[in-house]
Amino acid sequence: MIRIGEDVAENQLVIPAGTQIRPAEIGGLMALGFTSINVAKKPRVGLISTGDEVINPNQAPRPGQVRDINSYTLGALVEKSGGEAIRYGIFSDQFSVLKEAAAQALSECDVLIITAGSSASTRDMTADVIRTLGEPGVLVHGINTRPGKPTILGVCNGKAVIGLPGNPVSALVNGYLFVVPVIEKLLGALPKPRASVQAKLTVNLPSQAGREDWWPVKLNQVESGKWNAEPIFGKSNLIFTLASADGLLRIHPDATGLSAGEMTEVILI
Amino acid sequence: MIRIGEDVAENQLVIPAGTQIRPAEIGGLMALGFTSINVAKKPRVGLISTGDEVINPNQAPRPGQVRDINSYTLGALVEKSGGEAIRYGIFSDQFSVLKEAAAQALSECDVLIITAGSSASTRDMTADVIRTLGEPGVLVHGINTRPGKPTILGVCNGKAVIGLPGNPVSALVNGYLFVVPVIEKLLGALPKPRASVQAKLTVNLPSQAGREDWWPVKLNQVESGKWNAEPIFGKSNLIFTLASADGLLRIHPDATGLSAGEMTEVILI
Repeated sequence: MIRIGEDVAENQLVIPAGTQIRPAEIGGLMALGFTSINVAKKPRVGLISTGDEVINPNQAPRPGQVRDINSYTLGALVEKSGGEAIRYGIFSDQFSVLKEAAAQALSECDVLIITAGSSASTRDMTADVIRTLGEPGVLVHGINTRPGKPTILGVCNGKAVIGLPGNPVSALVNGYLFVVPVIEKLLGALPKPRASVQAKLTVNLPSQAGREDWWPVKLNQVESGKWNAEPIFGKSNLIFTLASADGLLRIHPDATGLSAGEMTEVILI
Repeated sequence: MIRIGEDVAENQLVIPAGTQIRPAEIGGLMALGFTSINVAKKPRVGLISTGDEVINPNQAPRPGQVRDINSYTLGALVEKSGGEAIRYGIFSDQFSVLKEAAAQALSECDVLIITAGSSASTRDMTADVIRTLGEPGVLVHGINTRPGKPTILGVCNGKAVIGLPGNPVSALVNGYLFVVPVIEKLLGALPKPRASVQAKLTVNLPSQAGREDWWPVKLNQVESGKWNAEPIFGKSNLIFTLASADGLLRIHPDATGLSAGEMTEVILI
């Protein structure tokens, strides 16, 4: 509901549609006597995890089992970005089971995210399932980034459907790259700069030309306002790589790497 | 409550104290089976507005009256920064009334913020009231910044007490500069870089040497990832100046201004 202050003409443009309501906007509204406004509806984002080996985080894994991480990292990312996360749980690697769960979730949500199990067969199954959900279906299957190669981008009857890798680091990095912009689009948000920090790279980072790399980096303060960016190495599938990172460093596809000492832009996560 | 997963030794350091729980940390916790953790208590921040001319935002101002903006902008900033905002309302410009309200609020909160009415006498009264609240009292009365000159920084019996100018732009800018760091300190937060964007200044900005200036600027995208910083001019007390700004541009006290075309760091707000 919009309550119009006595000193403002009805329909007068106070704050453009798509503006995020920050403390300053609240002040502007209060100054004019608007104590209640309409805001964009939170897009509902359905989350499905697949894989016979995936268990709930409160269970103790037996040999060969892994806890479901992706529903929770992506769910937190969705909520942080202004969406409503709906976790549908973990489904087995059977085409009919996954297809039914995905169709149900998509009918109830504005966006659907399926994170694949670790096996290549599961990943292909995700694409096959997305093809059954509506037209046009899979638009992109596989992207030339690291991490994120197996990412699937689709649209089914006007709703975005995204297949993300099972690898938790890859799933979350590609969530920042592909899920957040979809939520912002559905919110009608005006374009805004991504929060970042200029930092000096501490080591050489090689990269394949033609591939876009996103490196988790830790920011270490050298002096007030001056930061070093230290890439985090280690097993690329461990979510702790990201938990100890302050941001992501992009290596442009045209580059064959970055040199120690270069000033780089670190996107805060 | 901390539930320890069966595969982690009790007291093992998973995430250092003071870390903000982002999606990646949630993933790290889930991977280890921690589905519930202790987090820092939100600091309680009391907000008092003073001034006989100040009215609630849902009231229609008569000549000479202004709506209370500062309780709401600062309240939103406090909540955004991880604190709990408690608005005590608007109090008249009488020493005994303000003193009693401030003492009551400080006894119930971890931090107290008093925003002054527009008259110089009210501002001085704020300092006098802070002196009655406990030792050591007022530490700083007046700072060499624009906006923010009349800002008062105090400590009363171990609690931060901050007097901010009545001018809504000045109150909010100085909230970013002084209130947010206090909340982060009380949360025990590890130091982290402020979200910023490198942008090219569109015009010359003069400044007085010896004074630190914070200019509200609008960021305009030139091409993907390239931004121009356009300072917002106009009446300096209008909160709409900040509502149309994407960030704040700092002019160092040693500088006598910035030149058009310079690359500058814009702190996102």
